Amino acid sequence: MGEFLTESRTGTTLPAPCGQRGTDPGGTAEVPERRGSFGTQRGGGVAPAEGPEAVMLLDRARAEADPVLRAALGSLPGPMRRIALHHFGWEQSDGSPVEGDSGRAIRPALVLAAAAALGGPEARAGAARAAAAVELVHTSTLLHDDVMNRDTTRRHRPTAWTVLGDADAILAGDTLQALALRLLAQDPHPASPAAAARLADCVIELCAGQHADTALERCAPAEVTLDGALAMAEVRTGALLGSACAIGGLYAGASDEEVAALDAFGREAGLAFQLIDDVIGIWGEPSRAGEPLGAGVAAGKKSLPVVAAFASGNPAAAELAGLYARPGEKGDLDHIALTVERAGGRDWAQGQAADRMARAMQQLARAVPDPEAAGGLLALTEFVTRRTG
Amino acid sequence: MGEFLTESRTGTTLPAPCGQRGTDPGGTAEVPERRGSFGTQRGGGVAPAEGPEAVMLLDRARAEADPVLRAALGSLPGPMRRIALHHFGWEQSDGSPVEGDSGRAIRPALVLAAAAALGGPEARAGAARAAAAVELVHTSTLLHDDVMNRDTTRRHRPTAWTVLGDADAILAGDTLQALALRLLAQDPHPASPAAAARLADCVIELCAGQHADTALERCAPAEVTLDGALAMAEVRTGALLGSACAIGGLYAGASDEEVAALDAFGREAGLAFQLIDDVIGIWGEPSRAGEPLGAGVAAGKKSLPVVAAFASGNPAAAELAGLYARPGEKGDLDHIALTVERAGGRDWAQGQAADRMARAMQQLARAVPDPEAAGGLLALTEFVTRRTG
Repeated sequence: MGEFLTESRTGTTLPAPCGQRGTDPGGTAEVPERRGSFGTQRGGGVAPAEGPEAVMLLDRARAEADPVLRAALGSLPGPMRRIALHHFGWEQSDGSPVEGDSGRAIRPALVLAAAAALGGPEARAGAARAAAAVELVHTSTLLHDDVMNRDTTRRHRPTAWTVLGDADAILAGDTLQALALRLLAQDPHPASPAAAARLADCVIELCAGQHADTALERCAPAEVTLDGALAMAEVRTGALLGSACAIGGLYAGASDEEVAALDAFGREAGLAFQLIDDVIGIWGEPSRAGEPLGAGVAAGKKSLPVVAAFASGNPAAAELAGLYARPGEKGDLDHIALTVERAGGRDWAQGQAADRMARAMQQLARAVPDPEAAGGLLALTEFVTRRTG
Repeated sequence: MGEFLTESRTGTTLPAPCGQRGTDPGGTAEVPERRGSFGTQRGGGVAPAEGPEAVMLLDRARAEADPVLRAALGSLPGPMRRIALHHFGWEQSDGSPVEGDSGRAIRPALVLAAAAALGGPEARAGAARAAAAVELVHTSTLLHDDVMNRDTTRRHRPTAWTVLGDADAILAGDTLQALALRLLAQDPHPASPAAAARLADCVIELCAGQHADTALERCAPAEVTLDGALAMAEVRTGALLGSACAIGGLYAGASDEEVAALDAFGREAGLAFQLIDDVIGIWGEPSRAGEPLGAGVAAGKKSLPVVAAFASGNPAAAELAGLYARPGEKGDLDHIALTVERAGGRDWAQGQAADRMARAMQQLARAVPDPEAAGGLLALTEFVTRRTG
């Protein structure tokens, strides 16, 4: 676990996003050895896994967490209830029910798998409220992030603020955060206070991460440090995955060391996922990319491979700086992608992803030495990171 | 306690703000008998009390809650810490400390006074975290409300969003809400889970109230129901005061009935305060009013006396509708104030305020039968409601 991580959990500032302290992108790329079925390698990248176990685990997590979520949302005052049900995809804007996909339930599944890994079926059964609370916090942060970032679509649907206005989207986010912590406060499980403190701490960390992200977007590309961008990405993508795993551990009565290792496992896996996602965003097949290919590059966004390319300091980086300095003239996305690759951004990102997954595996082995007990967490991590560039 | 109150705590929708279900404003004005030194009458209104005891209680609450607040804020990641300290008025925007007033600490004082009333000094001493948590939630809602309402000043200072932008103000509000609930989750006091659940519930209620407030502002004046406006005002002003008292009771080991009575006491007193504040806003001396005299009327805002005037259905109400239908021609604020008064809005509001204070006293007597033990809560309520039109 990187030291920035420890710092962010104890309330220290994230590294300043701008500066001249870029890590040499060539220096950190290490290809880890294979461990079990996780993070199988292909050409330095990450190969897909089929993940039928993960699909089963996700379905089961939904079956366990959804009734708690629905009951919690059902207890909200009318207008907030309707907004929340609509945002979860469970209700049309006219109040009629929707039968369909309410998202992948990755975070609830991690809570339940971590509880099961360390405490067996009984611990898993006791952690349904915690699983629902983590999902509520996730949804709450999405609602507010979309307002702040002015993002107009999420999960292929219009974002809440575009439909309801900023005020109701802010109120819905506030409501879901409070609902998450009320669920834990009302949970008689002995682990619930510690879980609530950790979840609240995660919200604070996510807010600091969103603030750092905004600051990073304002930096000139060549001024973004790789350490700063990595730390920020780890918080933004990894903090809640780490908390989900840690909270599952708490509900299994895990030791402080085990909980810390579960948190680090989730964070490292989250950062690996983010790196792979960034690679797909620039070099992936359009049909597999999460957003239109190159949209981030076109918008001048500084994804991790792009930051690494700038930090390389080689001639291709100078050429890239020229391309980024002329907004509106970025029509040739293939040329940008090639320049980032020539500057070493792609190799760095793939090496980092592999490195992060190796670290995730080490942390998981610390938390759950029995490979069979760790199977559920492994399968979910494979599922999250199985996409490949 | 009005039934809308009970409904809102159990998650039922607030009454629709618009409709034709206006209460006859003449029917609810009752002048209560004097009880102790609270709510002394003058011309149907509420006379000032000196409140040296209240000033002492507020100073003491600050002395007890501020160290907890400062330690909690000090634990935040850097940028969020600076934003929060600035919003609390404890730090300049350049990070240098401010020695000065950080607000009146009414809510922490109510938590501590309620704990002392039912559990003596020991309960009071154990409730400092809870007092700080309630203040953090209050500050969190102010940060977000200012963003949503586009209010530009608060406590004679520019609001956070005008200085930091919407995104950081939203993040700071999210952070303070999480910090409040983390404080309670980490409090080893046996009452902390129940207090956390109640505080989270209060946040949910405040969000529903803010939503209803926005809906009310969109209604044509004649369509706003008096029941809807009263219920909304009770939530907006009373919910957190009620929760502060209830949480203090929980920390004193009070029974469910006592806690419910403390909650109702705070809510009724809060609504009385709001009614008095509305009267001052229209008819008060400019130097005593919280905002420029008549600013609310000029902006077309539907304060409770104005809603009551519309609901009266008498000829002055029809005249008022004509005045409100022509925005930009409201130059003659004296004429509007006189028309609201002729329609019965002022008498109704003063009668309602007296009625609500009588109800508050009844609830306080239920919760704390010993008048001496109730002295602190009485003094604080006097302080809050002592301003007079």
